Amino acid sequence: MTDSQTDPRELTALALNCTLKPSPAESSSDLLGSQLLEALAGHGVSGRMVRVVDHDVRFGVSTDEGDGDEWPVLREQVLDADVLVLVTPIWMGQPSSVAKMVLERLDAEISETDDEGRPTMFGKVAVVGVVGNEDGAHHVSAELFQALDDVGFSIPAQGVSYWVGEAMQGVDYKDKEPTPEKTAETTATAARNAAHLARLLAGAPYPAE
Amino acid sequence: MTDSQTDPRELTALALNCTLKPSPAESSSDLLGSQLLEALAGHGVSGRMVRVVDHDVRFGVSTDEGDGDEWPVLREQVLDADVLVLVTPIWMGQPSSVAKMVLERLDAEISETDDEGRPTMFGKVAVVGVVGNEDGAHHVSAELFQALDDVGFSIPAQGVSYWVGEAMQGVDYKDKEPTPEKTAETTATAARNAAHLARLLAGAPYPAE
Amino acid sequence: MTDSQTDPRELTALALNCTLKPSPAESSSDLLGSQLLEALAGHGVSGRMVRVVDHDVRFGVSTDEGDGDEWPVLREQVLDADVLVLVTPIWMGQPSSVAKMVLERLDAEISETDDEGRPTMFGKVAVVGVVGNEDGAHHVSAELFQALDDVGFSIPAQGVSYWVGEAMQGVDYKDKEPTPEKTAETTATAARNAAHLARLLAGAPYPAE
Amino acid sequence: MTDSQTDPRELTALALNCTLKPSPAESSSDLLGSQLLEALAGHGVSGRMVRVVDHDVRFGVSTDEGDGDEWPVLREQVLDADVLVLVTPIWMGQPSSVAKMVLERLDAEISETDDEGRPTMFGKVAVVGVVGNEDGAHHVSAELFQALDDVGFSIPAQGVSYWVGEAMQGVDYKDKEPTPEKTAETTATAARNAAHLARLLAGAPYPAE
Repeated sequence: MTDSQTDPRELTALALNCTLKPSPAESSSDLLGSQLLEALAGHGVSGRMVRVVDHDVRFGVSTDEGDGDEWPVLREQVLDADVLVLVTPIWMGQPSSVAKMVLERLDAEISETDDEGRPTMFGKVAVVGVVGNEDGAHHVSAELFQALDDVGFSIPAQGVSYWVGEAMQGVDYKDKEPTPEKTAETTATAARNAAHLARLLAGAPYPAE
Repeated sequence: MTDSQTDPRELTALALNCTLKPSPAESSSDLLGSQLLEALAGHGVSGRMVRVVDHDVRFGVSTDEGDGDEWPVLREQVLDADVLVLVTPIWMGQPSSVAKMVLERLDAEISETDDEGRPTMFGKVAVVGVVGNEDGAHHVSAELFQALDDVGFSIPAQGVSYWVGEAMQGVDYKDKEPTPEKTAETTATAARNAAHLARLLAGAPYPAE
Repeated sequence: MTDSQTDPRELTALALNCTLKPSPAESSSDLLGSQLLEALAGHGVSGRMVRVVDHDVRFGVSTDEGDGDEWPVLREQVLDADVLVLVTPIWMGQPSSVAKMVLERLDAEISETDDEGRPTMFGKVAVVGVVGNEDGAHHVSAELFQALDDVGFSIPAQGVSYWVGEAMQGVDYKDKEPTPEKTAETTATAARNAAHLARLLAGAPYPAE
Repeated sequence: MTDSQTDPRELTALALNCTLKPSPAESSSDLLGSQLLEALAGHGVSGRMVRVVDHDVRFGVSTDEGDGDEWPVLREQVLDADVLVLVTPIWMGQPSSVAKMVLERLDAEISETDDEGRPTMFGKVAVVGVVGNEDGAHHVSAELFQALDDVGFSIPAQGVSYWVGEAMQGVDYKDKEPTPEKTAETTATAARNAAHLARLLAGAPYPAE
């Protein structure tokens, strides 16, 4: 890729941690999200993480549910970012309710468009992080990929990193020391590909209709 | 996008029709696949469609199951294409067994790499078509996006077109005349975005590790 | 079934409406839930419905998250019921975040047991209602069946009723008048089978280990 | 449960092994299926297992695709059994294509009815077995539960047994020696509950409309 093809802008990422537990509780999603952000930073995409349940986000499918709803603050951060890192724990083999709440709020973006009629999320890249004691990462990534793609995000090749333990065991990712090598590798790949794709799309947005 | 950013090569697409019915039976998946190919052609991506069950593809997770397995022939066509269009009917709210068989055969590609160590499907874009009498398109696209992304395909924004009827009704897409406007619009968007993303990745492949 | 096989107790049902909208907003889930309860009543299972978001239910995976958490009140009603009717809207082809929150709270019941060591939900029957503008009912029922069955509920034959419209259309179930015949039939079947199964299990509980 | 409540008939089970590999290849699904059958036998439900790919089953959604289709032979065995044990490997976090093919063939049963108008599968119980190197058991059971329940099977409480290893590791269930204790427990529970539910339904079938 020559310089002329790249966007000279520094790119940015926002990680939304969809754990059920407010800060300062420890969170495996927090650890995986930090690792994804660190890997992205190594490719020139600087970012930060927000724990969604630390904010008063309301159930709904609009951009602003009013009455103290704090989604609009997070939404601004999503709009400002080139890469969305959506990190969720697995509960019962499925994405967390908080992740679902975030997706429902993002659903409003389908009908929000820029000056040329493109949905607001067109041009952004999504990458996913999934952690659980056991089982569920592939399905969780399926649910998240589909919903994020519907809304307008692009999904890079191998755009997920995850860890789960053996069936019905009870260890948390945050207590695995050191980080399992396979997960470290998938984190590196997902971040590398997300950064590459985000840079391409920043330089050459999807055409309007 | 300036000319310098685009790959001068003509891009190509391969559509795999995962209907359960061999030719010459009529197929709604065939219709939607043709529409996706036609829309891609309008963006400089020429393509053709193969009906998987017309070939003797074997169950398995290798690139060649031997003994007359015809997957290797289809696999060559996948390797030659820049865009994979995976079209499947919905049965019981889920992807067809034929679509699953194709995904299992593609699973082998995770460990096939190019000279620089990148999986063979890195750089290719996947777009999905889903049709059924009723209900199931979102979930089918979730299953397909996840499996295709795991293997190394990139998924463009809104990379799916679909049609389903009202709950428990019995009309087929192939008998809808004219094509429902909403589906025609999603076909146009999916193809436009797939062509754009494929061209970007053809000009600037994901970096090796 | 002879009288000796039946539990003389009047059976009861609890419907949890997992719409995102607090009362008094109209809700398609409310309509379908009412129809399921009415059908159950016709088979001797009397019930009531609760709209979850009218209560201050907290995110979490325990039976009581403390600090004003109102799940314990709903939990008592679940424990008292023979049949759980879980009704959810479809958002993005998936169960609502509120439905997911309810499932996560029910996850705690796996480790709650009766005097003979059986999980608290063993012996209860779950039936599901799903409504959306378009697409997603089968997948939503899959997610709910799996999570409810994991927790200990039994699922009767054809234990779901649903309605969705044609792809990408915008009509709500609550505005369909009269109720689509196919949905009315599935409601009748799901309720009839749920009542039958609940009565069998009330008379002859699953054996302890 | 008193004797008067039980069906004096000896009950039977059929296990369908949905591995991709024909006999005599070793199969983890075979091992888990055998364990489920053995546990069922301990509750008076005798059974046998069939490896689907050893038979020439055709893609389709009818009871008989003709021209040498061997599904009708397997179908007779399903019709004769009180309990269906559906065992599948996980590929890409999803059910095998062979499992999907079986579900599609069972889809035909929705419109097959007995003298009183009840679908042929009403009264039968389904239990599920899932094995993979890593990740996917919950989702696979969700897909299977939903499709089997749609067709008319009833799902007992905790009606699944499974094993998966830690993320991205490569050990097979068939090479785990001894059987992991947690999986042995879930096998025992699933079989105990399936036998109980099948016996109840054999003695007191779902009422006709």
